[in-house]
Amino acid sequence: PTLSDVPFSWSGKVKLESDPTAKLYRKHFLGKEHQNFYSSDMSLGYLVLSVKYEQIEKQENLRLLLRTRTGTKHDLIPISCLNEFPNAVQMAKLLCEDVNVERFFPVLYPKASQLIVAFDEHVISNNFKFGVIYQKPGQTTEEEVFSNTVESQGFLEFLDFLGDKIQLQDFRGFRGGLDVTRGQTGTESVYTNFRGKEIMFHVSTKLPFTEGDSQQLQRKRHIGNDIVAIIFQDESTPFVPDMIASNFLHAYVVVQLTHSTTGDTLYKVSVTARDDVPFFGPPLPNPAIFKKSAEFREFLLVKLINAEYSCYRAEKFAKLEERTRSALLESLFEELQLRSRSMMGLPVGEDDKIENGSG
Amino acid sequence: PTLSDVPFSWSGKVKLESDPTAKLYRKHFLGKEHQNFYSSDMSLGYLVLSVKYEQIEKQENLRLLLRTRTGTKHDLIPISCLNEFPNAVQMAKLLCEDVNVERFFPVLYPKASQLIVAFDEHVISNNFKFGVIYQKPGQTTEEEVFSNTVESQGFLEFLDFLGDKIQLQDFRGFRGGLDVTRGQTGTESVYTNFRGKEIMFHVSTKLPFTEGDSQQLQRKRHIGNDIVAIIFQDESTPFVPDMIASNFLHAYVVVQLTHSTTGDTLYKVSVTARDDVPFFGPPLPNPAIFKKSAEFREFLLVKLINAEYSCYRAEKFAKLEERTRSALLESLFEELQLRSRSMMGLPVGEDDKIENGSG
Repeated sequence: PTLSDVPFSWSGKVKLESDPTAKLYRKHFLGKEHQNFYSSDMSLGYLVLSVKYEQIEKQENLRLLLRTRTGTKHDLIPISCLNEFPNAVQMAKLLCEDVNVERFFPVLYPKASQLIVAFDEHVISNNFKFGVIYQKPGQTTEEEVFSNTVESQGFLEFLDFLGDKIQLQDFRGFRGGLDVTRGQTGTESVYTNFRGKEIMFHVSTKLPFTEGDSQQLQRKRHIGNDIVAIIFQDESTPFVPDMIASNFLHAYVVVQLTHSTTGDTLYKVSVTARDDVPFFGPPLPNPAIFKKSAEFREFLLVKLINAEYSCYRAEKFAKLEERTRSALLESLFEELQLRSRSMMGLPVGEDDKIENGSG
Repeated sequence: PTLSDVPFSWSGKVKLESDPTAKLYRKHFLGKEHQNFYSSDMSLGYLVLSVKYEQIEKQENLRLLLRTRTGTKHDLIPISCLNEFPNAVQMAKLLCEDVNVERFFPVLYPKASQLIVAFDEHVISNNFKFGVIYQKPGQTTEEEVFSNTVESQGFLEFLDFLGDKIQLQDFRGFRGGLDVTRGQTGTESVYTNFRGKEIMFHVSTKLPFTEGDSQQLQRKRHIGNDIVAIIFQDESTPFVPDMIASNFLHAYVVVQLTHSTTGDTLYKVSVTARDDVPFFGPPLPNPAIFKKSAEFREFLLVKLINAEYSCYRAEKFAKLEERTRSALLESLFEELQLRSRSMMGLPVGEDDKIENGSG
């Protein structure tokens, strides 16, 4: 195999594709002067709106952020484009035409922004757990793959390259569900800190092997709950995702060991994911063969993290996330309503639909 | 006369004693996350409250600013000192027990903070005008003093020391009411820029002299409307403030030329002000004799500016200011109410006393 004339450009900073919307409130609103509102729409459900006046080079703008059950809409609107200064309802409609509410109510609780930023950032995680499944040549079933115990020199070299070997006992970092007190999930694992994120790998061969358990549940219960996994192969052998039964695993990065003519360690990479997982970068070069190097490690870790972000948008997780988001938005709404009304010295209770409140 | 063993300390930065409350909103609130409220109190009149949550070394505080007709109250209150999280009315009472309102209403207009900071800073001025009256020995009447035309060498030296001689025609700085287009208030004046403030002096001898007008109205109409004036004397001669009839002049800094044994220019300074003008620094050393120096110039200019600030608190100006403040607070209240109600899509009109608004 020849080393791909890897376009040097990608060795530049490969980008993490986290959901940009989730960080907008912290970036533009938190700690800065702005006003929050809440309302409840018959069809769209609970709404939380953030409004900020921004002057950029003499131009007056309104930065708007509207949170609904299904997502967050954001825009920066020059006031000059509007024929009059919009009220809260009109502002919300600027972001989402379907908004159909009588009124928005002001959030008045001085600590509200902490609640709002926590809601916005509930999708952002700084902790990741990825499976690392060791597949030997010719193995085509889950049972075979999860029963491997002997780690080849190539696999050990790859694990060493991937991250730090850590002792699980009393490990203080992100443990990704592994047992750090009673040693029930093995003694060691592979862990790394990358761009401020903690990554714990679930290495199949390092999870406890159970004699006579063809399913190797002690291994499957961790890896089967990961969303993204690496498949490591000493040499080329077919990998079919359906081989592994899991509701969670949605994307695999297959890393196949190979060597250059001069004996350097090379890794041939391919990626497979379920149909409804949107594309995630950085794009694989062609051919996708990498020298064992810091650049490749960066490429691989970013690819894994982006894979996870992308999987969040696959139907299963998107639905799950929408339920989570919807529940969190409802509790945010209720807290903001309760606190704002008490701030006004008003009795707790439903906001009347038609009111001439606000002084 | 011996040079006072001037305590070196005061030659450190002499402080301007401007009203600190006026700058609090810009310092702690403007541009930062906070909430404003408005209400109307039967006895206290219009109220505008600013509330900000501040965490200082793990301690949670509420920074509060309450504007009433008569003044602005400010405090930083640790939340731990309160048995429950206060609502807006309770917060206002924390600053001013006399507050007796049903409710406060939220300010919701994104550009409100600009209106509020303008109100708070209406007392802050960066432009000053001071009289400089040349009194010759033995002169005891306004007519005599305002008729002086020949400037002594000592007076010229002092004017040169005080500021820059400027040509009034087309002068672009703060003109303090002088004519910069048609030369009707003389051709020259003395002006200076000091710590970001513009000072225009009304020098009696440089204002037009009118033959046969004993009152010298062309000179009196400027100096008589100043609040603070310098009286310059070539040598010691009695100065009695009542000598000059003016409703505005409230404080005088008398500067009497003198010389050291070695012939250096010295200035003997005394200060007189109306009874209801509170003390203003920097304190005069004892004896109050200064070498002509940058330190003395700084002392003199700060003394003049502080004199003006202090005079604002004398009854005449305090009353004037209260009327101005009350009118400005009313228009601020109305604008905030109008804008906030329109922000909520509510019809313009009085806030109903008892409402269950705010969602």
